[in-house]
Amino acid sequence: MVYQKHITIETTGNKDLHNITNEITNVISNSGIKTGIVHIFNVGSTGCIGAIELEPGLEKDIVTILDKLIPPSSSYKHELTWHDGNGHSHLQATILGPDLTIPVTKGQAVLGVWQQVFHLECDIKAHTRNIMITVMGE
Amino acid sequence: MVYQKHITIETTGNKDLHNITNEITNVISNSGIKTGIVHIFNVGSTGCIGAIELEPGLEKDIVTILDKLIPPSSSYKHELTWHDGNGHSHLQATILGPDLTIPVTKGQAVLGVWQQVFHLECDIKAHTRNIMITVMGE
Amino acid sequence: MVYQKHITIETTGNKDLHNITNEITNVISNSGIKTGIVHIFNVGSTGCIGAIELEPGLEKDIVTILDKLIPPSSSYKHELTWHDGNGHSHLQATILGPDLTIPVTKGQAVLGVWQQVFHLECDIKAHTRNIMITVMGE
Repeated sequence: MVYQKHITIETTGNKDLHNITNEITNVISNSGIKTGIVHIFNVGSTGCIGAIELEPGLEKDIVTILDKLIPPSSSYKHELTWHDGNGHSHLQATILGPDLTIPVTKGQAVLGVWQQVFHLECDIKAHTRNIMITVMGE
Repeated sequence: MVYQKHITIETTGNKDLHNITNEITNVISNSGIKTGIVHIFNVGSTGCIGAIELEPGLEKDIVTILDKLIPPSSSYKHELTWHDGNGHSHLQATILGPDLTIPVTKGQAVLGVWQQVFHLECDIKAHTRNIMITVMGE
Repeated sequence: MVYQKHITIETTGNKDLHNITNEITNVISNSGIKTGIVHIFNVGSTGCIGAIELEPGLEKDIVTILDKLIPPSSSYKHELTWHDGNGHSHLQATILGPDLTIPVTKGQAVLGVWQQVFHLECDIKAHTRNIMITVMGE
């Protein structure tokens, strides 16, 4: 059995982080699937999906560490062609990745007590982001 | 067809790495599934799942590089709220990620000769870790 | 429904990047599956799969940033045992990861306009790389 639902979120630009755990929970519930997996995917090359404990401290820390490891810079080769100031956005999104898959048991996402799912806008400008959620199982 | 099995491992705390390849092999074998995928997921926000060649050198290197990139520090905002000394644990787990999916062919995980699956305890204290393994296919 | 296809690519060694989006598109098309997921996996411990905008700038940037974060070095413990100069290759491949899963809708991979799938050779020598593509759904 496959159930697929496309959701959209509005981001305000660079480092806007959204908790999308409830949206995922709702899609699983609507799917009627009890056992299997749920796959979450950011459509687009400058946003990503991950799992973290969503509390105000870590919401800042994840953004800070990404900018420390892969800092905004005009020296990326991407800039030579596009001059759009978001070379680091692409690289951060690639390192963290656009996809996450979570097990589904008894009709619910199997997450730890503090484990939640986020969408992170890595681009420097606002976007309407398309996120595809696919539930598979029985 | 879906087959799901929950396994637990006991970790000794920060940077305890477990080879869980055999456990995955056993779950696939018990599932009876011949062609499809196997999904492995660490339930909890301070542990992660990855693939690597498990030999004593790399087992140390992966831990060392994670601590170099995302060092233990009291300056994470997470510490301001929780004072539990594991801000880096959360961030390392998020960057490496809680999930891994591997193809299944002829009833076996398709892995390279040197490619194995590990669980890494990123937290600074010991945990009983829940890992969910889901096999899907036919 | 499950459809699985194994493809091979020839890499020239360290940092050879291949766009494999067309190969994935073809496998989905041949599968006849309209709704579900496609899973892509690099078999082997020194190559990886990711998503990025494939233009000449970013193709260089992703390689540069990986070498900056996890530089080639003879100080990895892996070298003490193997002396093969590819400690960083293993670690880069583990951090970026061997797997990627993308939703399939209306018989097509759901990717952003600029979002494509790459295979990156992290090893320092040439390889014939096995990539397994699994399409699941209905």
